[in-house]
Amino acid sequence: MSLAPLVTGPAGAAQRRAIAKAITLLESTRADHRAQADELLTELLPHAGRSFRLGISGVPGVGKSTFIETLGLYLIGQGHRVAVLAVDPSSTVSGGSILGDKTRMEQLSADERAYIRPSPSGGTLGGVADKTREALLVCEAAGYDVVIVETVGVGQSETAVHGMTDMFVLLQLPNAGDDLQAIKKGVMELADLVVINKADLDAVAATRAQAQITSALRILTQQGRERGGWLPQVLEISALKGEGVDRFWSAVSRFRELRQASGELASRRRHQARAWMWERIESGLRHDFRQHPQVQALLPQLTDEVEQGSVPASTAARRLLATWQAKT
Amino acid sequence: MSLAPLVTGPAGAAQRRAIAKAITLLESTRADHRAQADELLTELLPHAGRSFRLGISGVPGVGKSTFIETLGLYLIGQGHRVAVLAVDPSSTVSGGSILGDKTRMEQLSADERAYIRPSPSGGTLGGVADKTREALLVCEAAGYDVVIVETVGVGQSETAVHGMTDMFVLLQLPNAGDDLQAIKKGVMELADLVVINKADLDAVAATRAQAQITSALRILTQQGRERGGWLPQVLEISALKGEGVDRFWSAVSRFRELRQASGELASRRRHQARAWMWERIESGLRHDFRQHPQVQALLPQLTDEVEQGSVPASTAARRLLATWQAKT
Repeated sequence: MSLAPLVTGPAGAAQRRAIAKAITLLESTRADHRAQADELLTELLPHAGRSFRLGISGVPGVGKSTFIETLGLYLIGQGHRVAVLAVDPSSTVSGGSILGDKTRMEQLSADERAYIRPSPSGGTLGGVADKTREALLVCEAAGYDVVIVETVGVGQSETAVHGMTDMFVLLQLPNAGDDLQAIKKGVMELADLVVINKADLDAVAATRAQAQITSALRILTQQGRERGGWLPQVLEISALKGEGVDRFWSAVSRFRELRQASGELASRRRHQARAWMWERIESGLRHDFRQHPQVQALLPQLTDEVEQGSVPASTAARRLLATWQAKT
Repeated sequence: MSLAPLVTGPAGAAQRRAIAKAITLLESTRADHRAQADELLTELLPHAGRSFRLGISGVPGVGKSTFIETLGLYLIGQGHRVAVLAVDPSSTVSGGSILGDKTRMEQLSADERAYIRPSPSGGTLGGVADKTREALLVCEAAGYDVVIVETVGVGQSETAVHGMTDMFVLLQLPNAGDDLQAIKKGVMELADLVVINKADLDAVAATRAQAQITSALRILTQQGRERGGWLPQVLEISALKGEGVDRFWSAVSRFRELRQASGELASRRRHQARAWMWERIESGLRHDFRQHPQVQALLPQLTDEVEQGSVPASTAARRLLATWQAKT
């Protein structure tokens, strides 16, 4: 029996179990599960797409969990249903660290109106991101109208989360070194909104950080982001004290309205879906290539010769492609 | 008869003709030419790799031609042989603009000790870059010991030129807006050396630009580039008056010595060769995929459905890959 009617059915314990089962099915690597998962996704898709997709990033220690819990409880108080997903690049190695423990967001995870799911683990970052995109569709089909996708500030996973959300928020600490690191890793330029968390700890530092980040954003997004009527902003908050969360949400709502009115929200989603398809195709092509027995036999030595400079890289590539194309 | 003995033979008119013929062969799209070109490259490769590969970028109007001509004449005066190649992304559309006209570098192009070749035209940026990498090997095999690869400041072509050279130099005008644009396009962070050209026009502006760029470089390359003992530098020169070219070359020579001593020059080249091979492989895989008749039949509608949100992107990708893999 398909899980779809349960996922899209009334909220409650049966729906929660169906969502969990659906996501587990999507995360499975078994071929028969994959076929079922594809069917399920196709059934769910007409019910998806109605949430606001919010990406949140920040280095460990910035207070992401506290911020997301505070925000989640605030949104629930406003009548929203909130799902929290995660893309954790370390999960590809270690089997997961962020959101591995639901007790990190104790109050929120205990609430019926919230659904929290740790990062899928294992495989490549592309694989982890892929599963999270699919889980996001499941949560939307289940009627969660705000989906938060969390990640850590290392660069690559931010690009993945930016590529699956409507708005990308960067959490920063009130000290200068932090923003330089974010600029260097290319995370800052993805941000639609920068939040200086723990602003209560050192008001002077927070104000200085706000000025620095505002000027950095002006440089990084020149001619870029203002088209939809939105210029990246910087907000100071204290998630621990619950200060500034309302201002944060009204900035998010303003962003959403502007982007919806300009058509950019829809066009960003179309672009994301298309890019996701091609990313999956290219990853499939590489996989097929690397699995080819004769390619596997040739590759190590040719790579060596290319690196040593005894075979031109273009010649090596052509030779490998010819071997691969000759497959019967 | 192979062109290789002529290319690697004594400098002179016969060698110049052989180089031109060899590069024309490499640029040909005919399959039989390509096979010959692969053979030729393999013959030439043992003679290649001994030049210093210098990438030079800057927006139109920054004075690139004058700078390269001044530098080229200076190097020839020092006993070097200089080749100038170009990667012009506009050539993929228009059939070439930069270096299309050799009269741009009148004195240098008239000199026997210099070889100037316009950008290959047509095809994708990847294709243009590919041909230029191969032409670079031909020039090296012919004994040119400094190969300059020129490009314009738009971002993508800079990454390609950075990926085929030992050192990447960015020319800037002495005004502030220019450096912000370079930062935004991600070109600044590629630079091993930034040259403020036309510094004589406005000494105050040039000094201010130098300070700004120095501080931007410090941010962008934090923890990154200083490992080989080299911190990106900023120089003021006036190519038109011939001022500062000697200082420029001594900075380049210092860079080269440091990188050679640390082993980074060799490891950057190994990495570049390997990356080039994979770039070619992935481009070949995409080409094979897009050429598949059934993929071509399915792709437009599936792309539409993915963009409209009626088919999940991951499902569409799997369906297309299955179609493609079923080829007989």
